[in-house]
Amino acid sequence: MTSPIIISLDAMGGDHGPTVVVPGVADYLRRHGGEGVRFQLHGDADRIEAELARHPTARAVCDVRHTDKVVAMDEKPAQAMRRGKGSSLWNAIETVKAGEAHAAVSAGNTGALMAISKLILRMSAPGLERPAIVASWPTLRGVTAVLDVGANVESDAEQLVEFAIMGEAFHQAVHGVERPTVGVLNVGSEDMKGHEEVREAARILREGGLGLAYHGFVEGDDIAKGTVDVVVTDGFTGNIALKTAEGVARFISTLMREALTSDLQAKLGAFIAMPALKRMGQRIDPSAINGGPLLGLNGIVVKSHGGADAKGFGNAIRIAVDLARSGYLDKVSRNLGRLAALEPLTSPSDAPMQDAHS
Amino acid sequence: MTSPIIISLDAMGGDHGPTVVVPGVADYLRRHGGEGVRFQLHGDADRIEAELARHPTARAVCDVRHTDKVVAMDEKPAQAMRRGKGSSLWNAIETVKAGEAHAAVSAGNTGALMAISKLILRMSAPGLERPAIVASWPTLRGVTAVLDVGANVESDAEQLVEFAIMGEAFHQAVHGVERPTVGVLNVGSEDMKGHEEVREAARILREGGLGLAYHGFVEGDDIAKGTVDVVVTDGFTGNIALKTAEGVARFISTLMREALTSDLQAKLGAFIAMPALKRMGQRIDPSAINGGPLLGLNGIVVKSHGGADAKGFGNAIRIAVDLARSGYLDKVSRNLGRLAALEPLTSPSDAPMQDAHS
Repeated sequence: MTSPIIISLDAMGGDHGPTVVVPGVADYLRRHGGEGVRFQLHGDADRIEAELARHPTARAVCDVRHTDKVVAMDEKPAQAMRRGKGSSLWNAIETVKAGEAHAAVSAGNTGALMAISKLILRMSAPGLERPAIVASWPTLRGVTAVLDVGANVESDAEQLVEFAIMGEAFHQAVHGVERPTVGVLNVGSEDMKGHEEVREAARILREGGLGLAYHGFVEGDDIAKGTVDVVVTDGFTGNIALKTAEGVARFISTLMREALTSDLQAKLGAFIAMPALKRMGQRIDPSAINGGPLLGLNGIVVKSHGGADAKGFGNAIRIAVDLARSGYLDKVSRNLGRLAALEPLTSPSDAPMQDAHS
Repeated sequence: MTSPIIISLDAMGGDHGPTVVVPGVADYLRRHGGEGVRFQLHGDADRIEAELARHPTARAVCDVRHTDKVVAMDEKPAQAMRRGKGSSLWNAIETVKAGEAHAAVSAGNTGALMAISKLILRMSAPGLERPAIVASWPTLRGVTAVLDVGANVESDAEQLVEFAIMGEAFHQAVHGVERPTVGVLNVGSEDMKGHEEVREAARILREGGLGLAYHGFVEGDDIAKGTVDVVVTDGFTGNIALKTAEGVARFISTLMREALTSDLQAKLGAFIAMPALKRMGQRIDPSAINGGPLLGLNGIVVKSHGGADAKGFGNAIRIAVDLARSGYLDKVSRNLGRLAALEPLTSPSDAPMQDAHS
């Protein structure tokens, strides 16, 4: 490692501000070493310094950049764009644009972070209205990247292919899989299933010579099975699939808690099985997968969950560092260039005309 | 009860044919009494009679209609339409059309069942390309009806409103809720979120004077919370949400089984807590919610899962009986008539123009 990787942090973002961001840096250093990584912390210098005093490992690799201004968690994106200049969130992104930092991490308001990131960094994928968000989804085989999970409400075939390109590079960089497999989410696995956008995206991925390991269509239950490394879908479907899954997971854990506290015998059994149940809990610990990069920007920005704890924020930092180190942006821009060169292939008149049940 | 309710059964459908269908009738009678209900069983008379001989309660209320012909579980819908005439599936639907039966139940091939039902019975909702399927989803508050979960790949605003009307009547008939609440599935709960189809559907439901208890937009995690009784969505999103949820539930139960058998101590704890875990399992038993009606037809057709057991098939029968008894078809056709009268309201130029993040 020659020159250090600089990660810019919005120290005031999220529900807890510096009291999670600074311990998050310390947690990152403890778990991942963090050799050759330094941090810029944007926000209230007094509050940040007070936290740094309690975390000497973080203190050694952090520089503080003071600002009084903060984007509120409930501020509307349009308002944040107009009034957010000079805030901790804004400055964290601005240093990426200026080349002073390799990536930014914020647990701030998602809408504001997307709007300000887009305003400052601009989109690199020309078809995208706004950055795509990728979710790291725990599966039977490890982790699957699912995108978009909420930013782009409607996506045409070309955008779906852009998601495939970005998701592949993300998974490679962060999960260390050399040749991630890619699937397009659909209502069936046969070629003629689904609406025109997914069929056309599948055709480009299959025939476009983009060099991705394209698996084919996958269905909803393939996500948790881990059938492929990267699942591509429009932001509407992806957001609903993700929140539906969160709802189901919470439903089952509520039922389980109720069952295991329902009477004395159940409580005794639960007590005895507790070490095993705890190990299981670790496999679906949200902190271990926290950190959703905003993809499609000219720069690396990672969104941490607003309520994440230090371990979760530390994981979001790890994702930012992995993306910064991996040459992710170069790889994506190279592949987006190859996609643009395919233009003639994407004419909709080539699309198969059969409907879902023919 | 004056004249009996007649339910027509495709005795050859599903993975097990008469060996599940006949015990399914017996299970229905045992759990739900079945007073005033009689059955027509379509299929191989010898095989059906052999099963009936083992189930005297079923024998007393069943008439057998012989046919040699069967639609295979893997037959393509187009082929089934051409060659299916006279099959057990076809005849079960035909008796509904002829007024000899009040409803049909089949565990046969979904695509064939939909195509043949549509061909024989015709759609009652003019905007629908094919029948909508409703899923009964277990929630913290009971059961929520989610539709469409797979039949219609693209749905405009009017179709979403038709789903709301059909879902409300279904939930009322089958789950006995007098005034079910209805929500439209979206990526956020604010009025300006989502694409034009959902915003326009929401506007018609809110302002159209259809008399439904319209709650507003709901998100993916609201399904398992049971926020509303009926969740309306297009068939693409609904199918993916349902299969994603099934995948997550299977993932968690696999992890749990692995955890609770991982060592001796865990096995002991699981053994002691087993009665409580079994009670929990009953709350999410797929047999207890099996049976998805095909909505939007001029007649009642209920699809049972191909792999359902006798208890599951019995529940599909219960749903068919409840729909037949409730005046479901009259109610839906009355409300679809009111929707048609609203036509001028549905002009897209009235739709709000804001996008998801304004």
